Amino acid sequence: MSVEINNQPQWLSSQDLDNIREKLPILYVNVVPVRIDNTGKISHVGLLLTVSPDGTITRSIVGGRVLHGELVRDSISRHILKDLGPVAFPRIPVSLQPFDVIEYFPDKEVTGYQDPRQHAVALSYVVAVTGECQPSQDALDLVWLSVEEASNEKVRSEMYGGQDRVVRSALAHAGCLL
Amino acid sequence: MSVEINNQPQWLSSQDLDNIREKLPILYVNVVPVRIDNTGKISHVGLLLTVSPDGTITRSIVGGRVLHGELVRDSISRHILKDLGPVAFPRIPVSLQPFDVIEYFPDKEVTGYQDPRQHAVALSYVVAVTGECQPSQDALDLVWLSVEEASNEKVRSEMYGGQDRVVRSALAHAGCLL
Amino acid sequence: MSVEINNQPQWLSSQDLDNIREKLPILYVNVVPVRIDNTGKISHVGLLLTVSPDGTITRSIVGGRVLHGELVRDSISRHILKDLGPVAFPRIPVSLQPFDVIEYFPDKEVTGYQDPRQHAVALSYVVAVTGECQPSQDALDLVWLSVEEASNEKVRSEMYGGQDRVVRSALAHAGCLL
Amino acid sequence: MSVEINNQPQWLSSQDLDNIREKLPILYVNVVPVRIDNTGKISHVGLLLTVSPDGTITRSIVGGRVLHGELVRDSISRHILKDLGPVAFPRIPVSLQPFDVIEYFPDKEVTGYQDPRQHAVALSYVVAVTGECQPSQDALDLVWLSVEEASNEKVRSEMYGGQDRVVRSALAHAGCLL
Repeated sequence: MSVEINNQPQWLSSQDLDNIREKLPILYVNVVPVRIDNTGKISHVGLLLTVSPDGTITRSIVGGRVLHGELVRDSISRHILKDLGPVAFPRIPVSLQPFDVIEYFPDKEVTGYQDPRQHAVALSYVVAVTGECQPSQDALDLVWLSVEEASNEKVRSEMYGGQDRVVRSALAHAGCLL
Repeated sequence: MSVEINNQPQWLSSQDLDNIREKLPILYVNVVPVRIDNTGKISHVGLLLTVSPDGTITRSIVGGRVLHGELVRDSISRHILKDLGPVAFPRIPVSLQPFDVIEYFPDKEVTGYQDPRQHAVALSYVVAVTGECQPSQDALDLVWLSVEEASNEKVRSEMYGGQDRVVRSALAHAGCLL
Repeated sequence: MSVEINNQPQWLSSQDLDNIREKLPILYVNVVPVRIDNTGKISHVGLLLTVSPDGTITRSIVGGRVLHGELVRDSISRHILKDLGPVAFPRIPVSLQPFDVIEYFPDKEVTGYQDPRQHAVALSYVVAVTGECQPSQDALDLVWLSVEEASNEKVRSEMYGGQDRVVRSALAHAGCLL
Repeated sequence: MSVEINNQPQWLSSQDLDNIREKLPILYVNVVPVRIDNTGKISHVGLLLTVSPDGTITRSIVGGRVLHGELVRDSISRHILKDLGPVAFPRIPVSLQPFDVIEYFPDKEVTGYQDPRQHAVALSYVVAVTGECQPSQDALDLVWLSVEEASNEKVRSEMYGGQDRVVRSALAHAGCLL
């Protein structure tokens, strides 16, 4: 049975997921999509306009759960496909070493990263995309911001749950922290 | 409620865990314990003698599940305490960036890393320990091997599920791959 | 001859160094010294009060040249000894993978990191120190700052040549970016 | 003057370089060129057939000196251009964090990495290339090997100065160590 599961990552019912969320940390991937120049240097950061868990409109990065039986590489690809569309042409990293491991808790005080639904642990990657991006699900729009814009206070205040810190940690990793 | 959960990492019943294992990847930490000289260079690798899931006696590294509400740092500490005893004096890494993310599947063919019980994803760290190590639970013994010994074919064949590759990946990260 | 050189890292005359500085990038190590709690989390960042190349008093991190024939590990140890004294008890990293590679140029516009004397490339590490630190050469004092203090604008403005960004990049790597 | 130098990386005469090699470690970049599938996983490793410093024909990776005034990113690009030709279409990494820092000494005993000419320190990267590769200078040929082939003893014995270990360290970093 396990072999078939491995080849068919499994979706959960809402109720199953709710039950599990109270019992185990949920594995996530976080992806900060970027545009780069031909030397690999970041020129722009892509942020989605989405509706956050508390109902306000916020900017957010790409990401979501890793499914049962799903490889982390495939999960990164799937979430980019889901959030940026089929012709984003992402450059999935050669190494799975993340630039950071982000720990989200319902209580913001624990780590500063908040997810009201659950304890989630996100493997976080910077992924360059070279194609056209079309926010294709849940998101209202995708906006490319310069490194300066992505770092300014106004944009940071429009991100939820500490995702602005994920973005800046990504920029630091890429040598672009202001 | 969530706040209390955060402060009291939660244990699961066997049945709960069995149910969840069929539905979500389980988050693990893997720790390769090492002895270092005063410049940080690895001199020895610590391997536990344990009984593997299939009943044979094998060598293994330190590790286990991250609990609901538990910080990754605390999970690393807890598993070292569990496997190496209370006076191992581990140097928990300053950064949570793992040297690798290891994906275990019931089917060995998927990644070469095997866990017959579950799909598990292990954040993997090299942790120097400076105190006395006493295998305190499940393990029969702890043996310190030189880098050469830890890399030889006989020792590698005594490790289960690809853990020999985790060890060598750790050695590579530390500049000690033979 | 080379073997002897390897065992005796070689110092250069000022004139030799001046000549070389115009011809090759100079290899440096940068060390951000930190105090950690028992789970490895940074509590404080150590900054030296030093006289900068332009004559003003500034805060700075630990670092300096890698000598001919000197291992990077030994260079990290030597610069910590030089700047923090003999009983700092640093935990030299197990892996030489730096959190960042910082490129200093005489012209601040190139990368934002400036060294008026030379093109230098610094392998950058976060190093926890557990002993007493005594600024022992060149530095007037060593001050331990909380993560909040080390991140504030006033402290940042007292650092030269972009070293404030090195500190924040180190904090980002350690999961402490504010 | 420095500004101009920054924009025109400077070449050295042979004699200048010989003099400096006795006085300072020389900064290098090492690049392990790879072919990847659409999830970023390595399928093949590219090795050059070159004439080694001791006159024998050997397999080697891409790399060379970082010039005065040259950015590390530009140096990576330049050496790939030099060794793999103008249409290799490399994906220069978004982050300069290398997977390893390799220390070459004339004496093989120091680190196991040998360069008879000098003490060199190489920032080492895995770089996926997506175009046609034409060994364009010094190299006789470029051969793409599977991960298995690149790891076997025969191929390893054809690499000089520990470069086989650089390749395997790269494979470990990318999750492909056998």
